[in-house]
Amino acid sequence: MNEQLLLENIRGVLMRLEETIVFAAIERAQFRQNLKIYEPAVFGAFLEGESLTGYLLRETERAHARLRRYTSPDEHPFFRGLPEPLLPAMRFDENPLVPNTVNLNAELRRAYEREMVPYFCAPGDDGQYGSSAMDDVAVLQALSRRIHYGKFVAESKFRAHPDDFRPAMAACDAAKLLFLITVPEVEERVLKRVALKAETYGRDPEGRAGQDKIDPEHVVELFRRWLMPLTKKAEVDYLLQRGPAIA
Amino acid sequence: MNEQLLLENIRGVLMRLEETIVFAAIERAQFRQNLKIYEPAVFGAFLEGESLTGYLLRETERAHARLRRYTSPDEHPFFRGLPEPLLPAMRFDENPLVPNTVNLNAELRRAYEREMVPYFCAPGDDGQYGSSAMDDVAVLQALSRRIHYGKFVAESKFRAHPDDFRPAMAACDAAKLLFLITVPEVEERVLKRVALKAETYGRDPEGRAGQDKIDPEHVVELFRRWLMPLTKKAEVDYLLQRGPAIA
Repeated sequence: MNEQLLLENIRGVLMRLEETIVFAAIERAQFRQNLKIYEPAVFGAFLEGESLTGYLLRETERAHARLRRYTSPDEHPFFRGLPEPLLPAMRFDENPLVPNTVNLNAELRRAYEREMVPYFCAPGDDGQYGSSAMDDVAVLQALSRRIHYGKFVAESKFRAHPDDFRPAMAACDAAKLLFLITVPEVEERVLKRVALKAETYGRDPEGRAGQDKIDPEHVVELFRRWLMPLTKKAEVDYLLQRGPAIA
Repeated sequence: MNEQLLLENIRGVLMRLEETIVFAAIERAQFRQNLKIYEPAVFGAFLEGESLTGYLLRETERAHARLRRYTSPDEHPFFRGLPEPLLPAMRFDENPLVPNTVNLNAELRRAYEREMVPYFCAPGDDGQYGSSAMDDVAVLQALSRRIHYGKFVAESKFRAHPDDFRPAMAACDAAKLLFLITVPEVEERVLKRVALKAETYGRDPEGRAGQDKIDPEHVVELFRRWLMPLTKKAEVDYLLQRGPAIA
């Protein structure tokens, strides 16, 4: 794949993932925080030591693994020891990434359960545990996909200006790499676009007062405080593993 | 629960489900029809005779069943023989329905795979089988919930005017019951609201030409041609099983 095509592809996927994340967050925000669903073993020993959301996430990943989801270079599981795919492997001729082990899902899950949900869902407990956990799985999978797409972004940035990156990569200089991949104007543009999407999708379309489904500012902050920093971490971690050679 | 509360509750759930269905349909419409995922055994014997979407739907239902999803009176599985819940049963003190066995999911699934997907997704095959199947599960579950909510609607209509319904119920007169539950003005209002939602959520929020995610008319037709008739069937079937006594 040539560089221009790669970049356009990445941009298209990222913008589409913004919608998926906004939709999923709106769905989850129907329910209260229900923090009980993140506590291991609170629902008894049935869930093999996992929390309710953890259990459902793992069972979902088991099913998706059998459908070869995690053989795709842009998919990353939250759990280890998933079953082998039942479907024959797809060939990813076009994978522009170098082999790497970057997976920030443990960090993402911790931040989601401890910080993000308490931030964007209303406090309290409405007993809607199953529905909340199902929506958690959708949000977490969409966030994970978006964050790890940082690898493609990083690869594309490196290929566009390899000489800028090589010294920092050779020196394993994470702070310098973070500086190099950071483009504040692009981040502001993304946040503005996310705000517009959250306003469009989160308001009541009939304009009835008090019927908004989510505070658009909350969605913007999810991106600003958690999603973007984790994406940049994925970019830097990938570049550190990648090394300065042209693939 | 008193009648007025029941009715307001039902209305709130139905309107919220419209959003979920529109969001889910927009997600599925990213991908081509990929009709291969609905053919049993086309991906080999691995999927125990099921199609790809059928396999994922069943695995999802197995996980959700363990979290007691199908003990709730407004949830209906597509598959039989699901595992027992791992969680202790919740009590549904407020269930206004009489016990019944109405489940239109087989019909829904057939219509979805054979008619709805070919109608609202672009023709062809883009190889995105796993992603399409995941979105199918989300759409099918939302549609099923909306359709079977017809039982609550029917119960509420009956309680509001029991004397209108009793003769037709006693005579098991399905055609008469269908006539009694049909309120064309309400249906038109729902379709208008769905059109507004589909326009709001399905257009590109930045107004870029050619970036619309779904044709709003397609979403309206999903409701008009398939969802509303199946909902009314759920209403009639429920009333036939219910019998004319006041609970």
